[in-house]
Amino acid sequence: MMSESTIVLGANQYGKAEVRLVRIDRDTPRHEITDLNVTSQLRGDFTSAHTGGDNSKVVATDTQKNTVYAFARDGVGAPEDFLLRLGRHFTGEFDWVTGGRWEAEQYTWSRIPVDGQEHDHAFVRGGTETRSTVVTFDGDEATVISGLHDLAVLKSTGSEFHGFPRDRYTTLVETNDRILATSVTTKWRYNRTDLDFDETFADVRRLLLEAFAQTHSLALQQTLFEMGRRVLEAHAEIDEIKFSMPNLHHFVVDLSPFGLDNPNEVFYAADRPYGLIEATVQRDGIEGGHPAWSGIAGFC
Amino acid sequence: MMSESTIVLGANQYGKAEVRLVRIDRDTPRHEITDLNVTSQLRGDFTSAHTGGDNSKVVATDTQKNTVYAFARDGVGAPEDFLLRLGRHFTGEFDWVTGGRWEAEQYTWSRIPVDGQEHDHAFVRGGTETRSTVVTFDGDEATVISGLHDLAVLKSTGSEFHGFPRDRYTTLVETNDRILATSVTTKWRYNRTDLDFDETFADVRRLLLEAFAQTHSLALQQTLFEMGRRVLEAHAEIDEIKFSMPNLHHFVVDLSPFGLDNPNEVFYAADRPYGLIEATVQRDGIEGGHPAWSGIAGFC
Amino acid sequence: MMSESTIVLGANQYGKAEVRLVRIDRDTPRHEITDLNVTSQLRGDFTSAHTGGDNSKVVATDTQKNTVYAFARDGVGAPEDFLLRLGRHFTGEFDWVTGGRWEAEQYTWSRIPVDGQEHDHAFVRGGTETRSTVVTFDGDEATVISGLHDLAVLKSTGSEFHGFPRDRYTTLVETNDRILATSVTTKWRYNRTDLDFDETFADVRRLLLEAFAQTHSLALQQTLFEMGRRVLEAHAEIDEIKFSMPNLHHFVVDLSPFGLDNPNEVFYAADRPYGLIEATVQRDGIEGGHPAWSGIAGFC
Amino acid sequence: MMSESTIVLGANQYGKAEVRLVRIDRDTPRHEITDLNVTSQLRGDFTSAHTGGDNSKVVATDTQKNTVYAFARDGVGAPEDFLLRLGRHFTGEFDWVTGGRWEAEQYTWSRIPVDGQEHDHAFVRGGTETRSTVVTFDGDEATVISGLHDLAVLKSTGSEFHGFPRDRYTTLVETNDRILATSVTTKWRYNRTDLDFDETFADVRRLLLEAFAQTHSLALQQTLFEMGRRVLEAHAEIDEIKFSMPNLHHFVVDLSPFGLDNPNEVFYAADRPYGLIEATVQRDGIEGGHPAWSGIAGFC
Repeated sequence: MMSESTIVLGANQYGKAEVRLVRIDRDTPRHEITDLNVTSQLRGDFTSAHTGGDNSKVVATDTQKNTVYAFARDGVGAPEDFLLRLGRHFTGEFDWVTGGRWEAEQYTWSRIPVDGQEHDHAFVRGGTETRSTVVTFDGDEATVISGLHDLAVLKSTGSEFHGFPRDRYTTLVETNDRILATSVTTKWRYNRTDLDFDETFADVRRLLLEAFAQTHSLALQQTLFEMGRRVLEAHAEIDEIKFSMPNLHHFVVDLSPFGLDNPNEVFYAADRPYGLIEATVQRDGIEGGHPAWSGIAGFC
Repeated sequence: MMSESTIVLGANQYGKAEVRLVRIDRDTPRHEITDLNVTSQLRGDFTSAHTGGDNSKVVATDTQKNTVYAFARDGVGAPEDFLLRLGRHFTGEFDWVTGGRWEAEQYTWSRIPVDGQEHDHAFVRGGTETRSTVVTFDGDEATVISGLHDLAVLKSTGSEFHGFPRDRYTTLVETNDRILATSVTTKWRYNRTDLDFDETFADVRRLLLEAFAQTHSLALQQTLFEMGRRVLEAHAEIDEIKFSMPNLHHFVVDLSPFGLDNPNEVFYAADRPYGLIEATVQRDGIEGGHPAWSGIAGFC
Repeated sequence: MMSESTIVLGANQYGKAEVRLVRIDRDTPRHEITDLNVTSQLRGDFTSAHTGGDNSKVVATDTQKNTVYAFARDGVGAPEDFLLRLGRHFTGEFDWVTGGRWEAEQYTWSRIPVDGQEHDHAFVRGGTETRSTVVTFDGDEATVISGLHDLAVLKSTGSEFHGFPRDRYTTLVETNDRILATSVTTKWRYNRTDLDFDETFADVRRLLLEAFAQTHSLALQQTLFEMGRRVLEAHAEIDEIKFSMPNLHHFVVDLSPFGLDNPNEVFYAADRPYGLIEATVQRDGIEGGHPAWSGIAGFC
Repeated sequence: MMSESTIVLGANQYGKAEVRLVRIDRDTPRHEITDLNVTSQLRGDFTSAHTGGDNSKVVATDTQKNTVYAFARDGVGAPEDFLLRLGRHFTGEFDWVTGGRWEAEQYTWSRIPVDGQEHDHAFVRGGTETRSTVVTFDGDEATVISGLHDLAVLKSTGSEFHGFPRDRYTTLVETNDRILATSVTTKWRYNRTDLDFDETFADVRRLLLEAFAQTHSLALQQTLFEMGRRVLEAHAEIDEIKFSMPNLHHFVVDLSPFGLDNPNEVFYAADRPYGLIEATVQRDGIEGGHPAWSGIAGFC
């Protein structure tokens, strides 16, 4: 079977992924550490490389990696600011590079306490969560999406689930008291780029945790919405926030065969399957489908 | 800081993820095995659950899981067909469910050979790759995107890379003979749903491998495009195919400090960073950005 | 080729692995959470099951799992104490069970702060590290080995490496200032079982971190030994401590091709290969090779 | 609390882990590929490095890595033979190196078929399983332990489980027909080093698969023993073989709430917990606890 239509190149991007950059600021004896995983991808006119193997416009992915390290020489700062610098450089340096996508994960380190004092240059890795950011350039226009993932949280009470519709395939029993556990993945889109991104990140994280803790939950959807609502109310510089939150089931173990009750104390933490709740919380009137979300997994 | 704009729910979906389903067809002594990881997510009007914890329209994720198993009782068949059945059921059964997204990974098993004969009911897991499919319903309209990931391939010669632009950050040396290795992630969008999906999948996989092997590569981009071109030329039922292919670097080890040459025989296989090439190959005139691609990671 | 010697069953054990147990203590509004991954394995006379499929002595692994959950009804406490209870039960309940091995990993949760107060029943997962314990019974005699893994630490200075022998394969340059980073896996063997295991664990962890931070390191071996020495000096109830510590290389990036210096500020964090330092620190006169170490990976 | 006993260094080893080596034999147009992950660890007198940071006897791990690559220049061959060469080198080259441990994983590649012909230099990764070997030197004496892991196998019938003892914690129902699935990890100890290791490996793998397929199983223990028995009967050069085999539970889904039967056709594949069966099958009279097993996880 042969098709007569012409085959062409569609949307494309390329670059170097997962450049592991550790920057130590050592101007004073009290060192600072920045630990990033950076991905750089260029967009523009790369048709001839695809259709003819002509690399005259292909800025080598190795060059992109080198640029990441060279730029770190002047300091890194907030990952958002570092990626904005990279994006401006690549779109400004090469005529045919009309945009791109730069991504970073940041791993947190805290100082090791020694005799009650924080050590100057010895660090221990922080929590399981990872801070992330994606900066997209379309021509000169930059969009910043920041977020975090693998922030595991759990409430041992204050969560119910009932009132759902029942059909022939429904066997779930209603509950007025269950464990609610999830691993938060969230990303929010800023409407500006001239921000103190570190400060904003810290405050968003605080709001997310507080909303999770304080919301008496009738559905994980409700908790999610409240987490988003608080962030948008407090941060006018954010237009929308997306969540992908698994419902990590903790089942009450039936101990009655052993002559024991189980008043919500002994649980089996299941791996798979799990519920998966995904939603956007946004300001009214914001148009959905901003192109900067393209290629980000797990968000509708 | 308080924002005066109203906060509303945007795009959302929810369901049960990673329902591990193994179906044994045992009508004859020669059993067949189908091994799937199914995710079901519903779209529709779920606002009241988010804003008020009202679950009256929330088909429980547990119910979605039950439905997956119940439907398997009648057989599974190709994963695409199984997901189409699920999608039709959920959009037909509940008024407020106006669409959804069903996803499956399939793991391959082959028969254990015993005395040169394939065993009837003993199997060994196949390769590292995974077949996948995503079926999206928007109202009654279904779109099928199928693919595979973790298909690792390597050419020990027949790959070059030179002629790329050089700037102040470029140090990469040109080469006329290198190892080309990648782990193929690809997904293609069908323009029909009445297909023999198993047969098509097998043929696409064959074409991808042959194109990788036969293309003398001047750039991984060129190999990628050729892989896509062959698929679209042979399969009119496919409108576009997307690839995300890491360039898994194998560096020639410098043995000269030890008084040894290294004529492209001893390599260091690096983990990170790696090149990352992503592109769509499509029929001319196809509009980009089909909504069924939403939420699929790693594709531009 | 046929061998004439008789084939027999050697050492063996079996049980249920990775029983995920979450216990909520909710006697007061301030809940406590214990999150464990428990493995139970029995040793004894199970020959007939192996050679003849006779299960009359095979306490089902499902029964072992049930027992874990049933015992949690009375509270869990320190993982060491919980495993000791399990071991006593199984070796006491079944004549032919002459010993066994019980293992647990513990995941830490801390309370979510809300308005500066720790929340009563909302928790966030702690660091990346995991506490672990292995309790072995040989008849009535129990041995407790406890430890932790994935405790990632890094020093940005205060580490040197020089004076090593050079042969024809040596190219490494000496250094007086490098990043020292590792992910600590350690296990220590107690010589008693009547201990406050939680308190001891916390103190050992503190000593390990302080030793890592305070030791000016001429070799990762030296840091390792100092970590072990401090633990044994402070805890007479510990006879030996073993470490498996990767040397997670952070290479200074050569920025000179770009006209830049790099005074130990910009590093590439490599994945593989990595150094791997493994050693036991012990009291003089302790005999090596205690059987409780059998089957623990990555320790010599 | 201070302890008065002296603190000393016990057993120890160190080296470079996970050296990723790819060797292409390209003497003819039909290339051969060997893909290894090599770990080298030295044993000997390294006390002064631990207690005083004196590196004069510490053969740098970087040197060990270099040696791996340099030795590959002459070809690799079977991984066992390659490790034996490395071991002989290090124990011969440095007086104070009295032994060591060398480990390799091997990943399989098969040729891509093009028009029914195997391609000369294009390969696709084989199955999920990994071949492995550990070579230990104690002075001049070498011991070779080889094996494989992640060999996933499944029988859809021909497996029963009943006749097990019942106590107050037993709820498991007996079954005469279940899915038996496991992921085989096995290692066997050779009593010689002058062997065709590739040929032996291939035959052992064949025997393992055939035994799994052909054994009507009353217990996973029985299947395990039969797998070991066949290997030892056919290979006089192997003294003992150890297995660690999870019982990967596939539960029959109860479809009766939906008015459906389920004659062993629809299964839920569970992740955790799982049964775990570990045993040694050996020639009668072989003494247990050979030191070469030290540090190998998951084997009793």
